[in-house]
Amino acid sequence: MAPSAAPTAAPVLPSRGRLRPLGLDDVRVTGGFWAERQSVNAAATLEHIAYWLEREGWIRNFDLVATGGPADERRGREFSDSEVYKFLEATAWEIGRTGDPEWESRFRAIVQRVARAQDTDGYLNTRFGHAGQPPRWSDLQWGHELYCVGHLLQAAVARVRTRPGADDGLLAVACRAADNICDTFGRDGIDGLCGHPEIETALVEFGRATGERRYLAQAALFVERRGHGRLGDVEWGREYFQDETPVRQATVLRGHAVRANYLAAGAVDVATETDDPGLLKAVRDQWRNTVARRTYVTGGQGSRHQDEAFGEDWVLPADRAYSETCAGVGSVMLAWRLLLASGDSGYADLVERTLFNVVSTSPGADGRQFFYTNTLHRRELGTVPDTDRPSIRAAAAQRAPWFEVSCCPTNVARTLASFGAYVASTDDEGLQIHQYVPGTIGYRPADGAERRVTVSTGYPADGQIRIRVEDADAHPWTLSVRVPGWAGEGATLTVDGEVRPVRPGYAVERRTWRGGDEVVLDLPMAPRFSYPDDRIDATRGCVAVERGPLVFAVESVDLAGGGNVDELRVDTGRPPTLAGGRVQVHCRRLDPPDRDWPYDGQGPTPAAVPSGDLVEVPLIPYHAWANRGPSTMRVWLPTI
Amino acid sequence: MAPSAAPTAAPVLPSRGRLRPLGLDDVRVTGGFWAERQSVNAAATLEHIAYWLEREGWIRNFDLVATGGPADERRGREFSDSEVYKFLEATAWEIGRTGDPEWESRFRAIVQRVARAQDTDGYLNTRFGHAGQPPRWSDLQWGHELYCVGHLLQAAVARVRTRPGADDGLLAVACRAADNICDTFGRDGIDGLCGHPEIETALVEFGRATGERRYLAQAALFVERRGHGRLGDVEWGREYFQDETPVRQATVLRGHAVRANYLAAGAVDVATETDDPGLLKAVRDQWRNTVARRTYVTGGQGSRHQDEAFGEDWVLPADRAYSETCAGVGSVMLAWRLLLASGDSGYADLVERTLFNVVSTSPGADGRQFFYTNTLHRRELGTVPDTDRPSIRAAAAQRAPWFEVSCCPTNVARTLASFGAYVASTDDEGLQIHQYVPGTIGYRPADGAERRVTVSTGYPADGQIRIRVEDADAHPWTLSVRVPGWAGEGATLTVDGEVRPVRPGYAVERRTWRGGDEVVLDLPMAPRFSYPDDRIDATRGCVAVERGPLVFAVESVDLAGGGNVDELRVDTGRPPTLAGGRVQVHCRRLDPPDRDWPYDGQGPTPAAVPSGDLVEVPLIPYHAWANRGPSTMRVWLPTI
Repeated sequence: MAPSAAPTAAPVLPSRGRLRPLGLDDVRVTGGFWAERQSVNAAATLEHIAYWLEREGWIRNFDLVATGGPADERRGREFSDSEVYKFLEATAWEIGRTGDPEWESRFRAIVQRVARAQDTDGYLNTRFGHAGQPPRWSDLQWGHELYCVGHLLQAAVARVRTRPGADDGLLAVACRAADNICDTFGRDGIDGLCGHPEIETALVEFGRATGERRYLAQAALFVERRGHGRLGDVEWGREYFQDETPVRQATVLRGHAVRANYLAAGAVDVATETDDPGLLKAVRDQWRNTVARRTYVTGGQGSRHQDEAFGEDWVLPADRAYSETCAGVGSVMLAWRLLLASGDSGYADLVERTLFNVVSTSPGADGRQFFYTNTLHRRELGTVPDTDRPSIRAAAAQRAPWFEVSCCPTNVARTLASFGAYVASTDDEGLQIHQYVPGTIGYRPADGAERRVTVSTGYPADGQIRIRVEDADAHPWTLSVRVPGWAGEGATLTVDGEVRPVRPGYAVERRTWRGGDEVVLDLPMAPRFSYPDDRIDATRGCVAVERGPLVFAVESVDLAGGGNVDELRVDTGRPPTLAGGRVQVHCRRLDPPDRDWPYDGQGPTPAAVPSGDLVEVPLIPYHAWANRGPSTMRVWLPTI
Repeated sequence: MAPSAAPTAAPVLPSRGRLRPLGLDDVRVTGGFWAERQSVNAAATLEHIAYWLEREGWIRNFDLVATGGPADERRGREFSDSEVYKFLEATAWEIGRTGDPEWESRFRAIVQRVARAQDTDGYLNTRFGHAGQPPRWSDLQWGHELYCVGHLLQAAVARVRTRPGADDGLLAVACRAADNICDTFGRDGIDGLCGHPEIETALVEFGRATGERRYLAQAALFVERRGHGRLGDVEWGREYFQDETPVRQATVLRGHAVRANYLAAGAVDVATETDDPGLLKAVRDQWRNTVARRTYVTGGQGSRHQDEAFGEDWVLPADRAYSETCAGVGSVMLAWRLLLASGDSGYADLVERTLFNVVSTSPGADGRQFFYTNTLHRRELGTVPDTDRPSIRAAAAQRAPWFEVSCCPTNVARTLASFGAYVASTDDEGLQIHQYVPGTIGYRPADGAERRVTVSTGYPADGQIRIRVEDADAHPWTLSVRVPGWAGEGATLTVDGEVRPVRPGYAVERRTWRGGDEVVLDLPMAPRFSYPDDRIDATRGCVAVERGPLVFAVESVDLAGGGNVDELRVDTGRPPTLAGGRVQVHCRRLDPPDRDWPYDGQGPTPAAVPSGDLVEVPLIPYHAWANRGPSTMRVWLPTI
């Protein structure tokens, strides 16, 4: 990687690999779907998180440790420190993006409170290690101490990359904490690891940000230690925290879906920095099998409520989909790292799918309520979360303002604030655009003049993406634009008035660009049916409706006469249509007889065949559901 | 009910209602499916349970309380006392059935140890209320104190009904415990109830057994108290313990499936004894809706692992079926009570289905290992439980010898030992036979001579049931034989050589019987396909195979060449066959292509259509699966 004076403002900056990411300073998002979400994130979500962190006492926990306050006044779960750190990370990206002075001063104030809680040897945790508390590292299985430090390091990385040399003290706190971990868990230290992966990816990135190789070595050690049963048994089996099989030997992601993705992200980081193709291949294979057999059509991951875990292959029930928001964030982290390492467009496809259909589904339109899990089917209106206290239920009928385990709001906030860093990358040949958003992308290659492009698009409402090269260049370079897998055979690229079909992957145009040259990518935006693999038992005989990168859903509030979403049967002989900007399908209504016993020898009887008129049923983008009061909803629609 | 000198040896003896049960002394099971299970229960399971109860210290807990031993030596969960009581109940039925002197003396020894732990005021629990323990009744939500006493009372009922006047002391212990509860939780006492229903049905039956109305009144009070939120909130909502809606207002069973069934059973008992048709109707409606929409084809109940709970209507995933063994036992308890109250054959149908396909599935062939949950689909071989320690996992790949929550083995044992009491009943008109088992049934009506019948059958392997009336009678009486719902139009009844078709329900023959008269019921035993209601998303496009009352399954150990059960697609154009005593279906194998993403616009493509030869695939009765080493298994088979 070419050295540069100012660091790239991005969460992941590998020192080698196929692609080099651009950062928040290089990619300016000026409008459209993601700009709107970033603006709600800045205007509402960050403030909302700050309010709840104070209200629940999770920041005050640091004050308590700093002042030697009574241990029994500590509030929140054992990992509540991490929410403060993720909030700091989100705020750091936001300050980097907008330079907001108000957030700058609030950021500094919280960092000070965190810093005061740090022990002299660098140990930092509000739940362990002080008077009246369990000893440090006494519960590696569930204590989350290393996990919390991981998020502290990621916050410091965000700060160093956006405000290098800032005198807020966060970098020093993070260095001491990272050193303490290396001192404690190095080859001569405790032969342990954390029940919740996160420290691995964080240590590598912190090593990249600081140039300190020791952190990378410690991350590699943690990755290698996992999979040998060191963490012991838990009710759901050792695969819950991926401790039953070493990373190099595993063939698929399994167990707790957030843990699995964070660990795999860390393993990619280690593989990249240590130039370990075997480790990288192991994770790529795991990812491929996971996406092929264990991922929802939304990109969501994790089928099981009980242990927040992946199911076995093909176990993807819509109605008990866990699809935790944080697993979506973790999946974006993993896929982005694999994309940078390999340059394969499939990774960017999953990033797009997951951002649009999981990460952006979690927050409500007001940015002050969140889905923790993202079910694909709600059958009953269910209970509405109390808006004035943390929800104890992961699966509420509507979004909740806060959770006792409130990992999702902060994870969404840090992802949205750093969204620009997932848009584009460069290599020695030129520029790659992975995600389409109105704005500008500009960077200066190591050996050349600045290259700037302007992207104009109404995507994802519209499928045309116009990319205008702003600067003339004496030398040729390659512009690569991602053609999403969902586009099939339907995309075209227009350059200089010449239209050519382009297949999924990267459509490339190499030339000596003149200022004002334009490349137009046209993606096919007719709504379409998607059929599940026949091995997915839960959705056999159903279709989903997609348009562009968006998955659609039918929501009961859109049905005339308070209809039941479960009674609809789609006529797949009639393709979905666009009418007045809305996607529609044609359905009949099932009118089943009441029976005493739901199993009989009649086969699909005439009584079970839907009758009544064919009606047009409007759908909405899945991410937009549950913003209009209690409702029922389906993504997968049974066919006639 | 007509008074009789010796009590009927049955767990449920309502003082009014449509039918009067016969007991273990009236119904002698002499061979066949259930005799074999009772014999394994007696020869292996009871001994196995006794071993584990001692080994885990759950009986010793009583010694600890009796001797004032240190509280921290107590072992097991808060409800471990109940396992000792259920074991006593099972043993009492077994002694009643066989008169085994060895079990008699062991029974008495355990009763003595229990009795010594009782406080002077009747309070009895090893987890609360003594030095170093939490106070009595300090955790009604989770403490299970009332639940445990409920099982004590049921053990005492079994003993009083099988050995009236025995001097073992159990009745006195139970009376003191029941009185203590009435003193504590009466109208002027604690306005509370137990997080786990069980005390309600137990108090009613104990009242029936002792003639003490006070116990009935207390049971009625507990039933009425539930549903008003007295227990407070839990993570899974108040419906977890049925405390969100009063019993009279609820329309379906919901929440924790064992709790729901036990509560409903108690409500039926209260309704029957207090002649409360409104309460009875409420439970009958709940049962009907639950069976129509929330019950597996096996009779299993409970769809969710997380909270061991019913799902919403139509949520019946095969692969995450919880179908807890104890919920099956509870469902049999409830349906039996509703049958006695109403005389409707549908209740006996569910008793039969659940006994054959849930209760008899739990224990392995050797009677020393048990399924806690009874999944309908196992996709992976999974882990095999350690045979030398309690399993902490409810969903093991094979049966486990014991569990940390070991409610199922003792529940199976008490049900099998008392099986004879679920076979037949009487009313003023005559005799009703509900379950078919080789043996004799004899009773003396209040106003007449003894009536004895002999039942000969190979059921469920064979569909012919021969019922021979042994005694001549001067007066006519009615013999009613149940025609199961699954028999459809295919059953016939032969009396005196005359064959007539009989429909599901009770086929009745009223006559003045001569000794040697024979009635022959012929049930249609061709294996058959059963199709699920189209509203059950999880099994859309699948069939199950049934024969008689048995649900069948395909198990991987029966597939040639180590086949994958998930690749089979059944040709429903060819009915299942019987070949060499085995049920078979015709299948092709799915040969799906490897794809990077499991959703596409192609619809059911040629590639997804199964190919290859049509092969005959053998099935086994579901209850018999997992007795031949690790395997995968399916009940619901996708169709071609």
